[in-house]
Amino acid sequence: MASQCNICGTAAVVPRRALASTELGQRLGHGAGWIEQSYHIRSRGVAEPDETSSSLGAQAARQALAAAGWEASSLDVIIGACGVMEQPIPGTASLIQRRLGLGASGIPAFDVNATCLSFLLALDQACLGLAARRWRRALIVSADIASAALDFSTPGASVIFGDGAAAAAVEAGDGASGLLASRLETYGDDSGLCTLAAGGTRLRPHENIGAFLAQAYFRMDGRGTFLAAARRLPGFLDRLLHDAGTRAEDIDLVIPHQASATALDHLRRVFPHARKGVVDIFADHGNQIAASLPSALHAAIASGQLCRGDTALLIGSAAGLSLGGAVLRY
Amino acid sequence: MASQCNICGTAAVVPRRALASTELGQRLGHGAGWIEQSYHIRSRGVAEPDETSSSLGAQAARQALAAAGWEASSLDVIIGACGVMEQPIPGTASLIQRRLGLGASGIPAFDVNATCLSFLLALDQACLGLAARRWRRALIVSADIASAALDFSTPGASVIFGDGAAAAAVEAGDGASGLLASRLETYGDDSGLCTLAAGGTRLRPHENIGAFLAQAYFRMDGRGTFLAAARRLPGFLDRLLHDAGTRAEDIDLVIPHQASATALDHLRRVFPHARKGVVDIFADHGNQIAASLPSALHAAIASGQLCRGDTALLIGSAAGLSLGGAVLRY
Repeated sequence: MASQCNICGTAAVVPRRALASTELGQRLGHGAGWIEQSYHIRSRGVAEPDETSSSLGAQAARQALAAAGWEASSLDVIIGACGVMEQPIPGTASLIQRRLGLGASGIPAFDVNATCLSFLLALDQACLGLAARRWRRALIVSADIASAALDFSTPGASVIFGDGAAAAAVEAGDGASGLLASRLETYGDDSGLCTLAAGGTRLRPHENIGAFLAQAYFRMDGRGTFLAAARRLPGFLDRLLHDAGTRAEDIDLVIPHQASATALDHLRRVFPHARKGVVDIFADHGNQIAASLPSALHAAIASGQLCRGDTALLIGSAAGLSLGGAVLRY
Repeated sequence: MASQCNICGTAAVVPRRALASTELGQRLGHGAGWIEQSYHIRSRGVAEPDETSSSLGAQAARQALAAAGWEASSLDVIIGACGVMEQPIPGTASLIQRRLGLGASGIPAFDVNATCLSFLLALDQACLGLAARRWRRALIVSADIASAALDFSTPGASVIFGDGAAAAAVEAGDGASGLLASRLETYGDDSGLCTLAAGGTRLRPHENIGAFLAQAYFRMDGRGTFLAAARRLPGFLDRLLHDAGTRAEDIDLVIPHQASATALDHLRRVFPHARKGVVDIFADHGNQIAASLPSALHAAIASGQLCRGDTALLIGSAAGLSLGGAVLRY
């Protein structure tokens, strides 16, 4: 096994306010049913100003710790796995550590980033550290406030996104559970397909505020992204399943990043024989960036869809462009 | 040993333009010698618009690969370890992968963040993956354009910073070299000491541009940060050296994050017996955020100060507040 680890508790939270597609459609001057018919999303969470990545993330973290039956102080590491940080300095993991009442603990808190695949990356890094006995207990928190940078004049790059957070409490394993394999492939030639250009060191708001504001929206070629990922998916899956020593027909449940209804339909076609199907929470959550995959994982666990002993495929794509996946023996 | 790995090549680059403290001092209305006398920095690199994190990072990466004698295509992973990203989406590692001509390779590229300790975090994560035989060859790239967010009306939080990039090519080891121990401690209660608040999802430029611009500068309580880190340093070092099974007197060379002249003086007092001293490139580089520690590492290797078989202490503090360190058998 690539790395033994045990997912002991998970949680997912959404902001207080859910925005229905009927309301959003009317506000945008479309018919009430247009968004749902076109994008197959009914509603998504939209954060209020007090609901930041670290506040929603800490809320999810507390619930995941409770589900695992762990004291926060028993953690050995906190890994922030957000698509976009709450603020550039310091990282979101430090802010979450503080909100958990651990701000004097010294428990290491750092962030990892592979945009929508950040949770998968963090799970892999955590499991490597757990398998090496660097840590015994790890907390992974993904939170994203997509609504902060959406341009509703481009519906395909805006109406499908939702805000939220999810967390997982992961422990060094005893051999029964863990990642059979984990794989990330990055194709930087497609780095222009999904971008948020403003917010880092390249575009400087004090020097040219107009250029900054024009690029402070998330831009996505949705069709191009889907095609670029779908084209590479068969080879990627072959390599991942080979690494895991698993066949496609051994996968009980597919737990995908909730990229879009189109992407989820595609995965149902690729895995027609998965005994327990493909986890789909898109209609009421939308694409929650990095929080999306762990929210789907939590939904599968909470609903009883994912059971101990099952083999699950965690899978998704991300800006980068990256494809990522892991074969999880839960 | 915590994880066997071999640093095969390093490089550091600075922007084309060096800004002397005499010039900066005059521009700020101080005397020509004031900055150098007060902060012990003579000059720092300042990036031009075309010199972004990914461009400087790719330049350092190419040089590190050449120093290692590796083809770029032989890499198994590229880890971006910047303090602040070039842009929020996608991460800097994808952009560097593309610039290295690897954009169709599928070589995994992701980012990790612990502000000024990002390189140390990446080195630790890389070594965990190399020790587990997940990867054979890893490239770590740190690049930061501090000058993008400096407020020169607060000299202590501005004149000491410089731009730059550094990279390290690291290979799975044969037992002779590696990290004897690596440690990160985070104290989120001090997360307010160093901040860059604007640029993530919390402050939204489209909703309140005034508030955004006011917080789009790096803020630092320099004295408070130094004291918070210095207070925790003795305990941190005891734990790190204990993890490594090493005594302070076994450290040949101290390679610190170049936080400030004060911080470097402090380390010289803490390690008076380090046979080869404390690497200090501050006067001509300043604090280069995440690029600082690997630039010091490269300087030590390039100058012959760090030799094969030496035991080095990599050490620093970061916004978070975090203390980080590793004992490296080079």
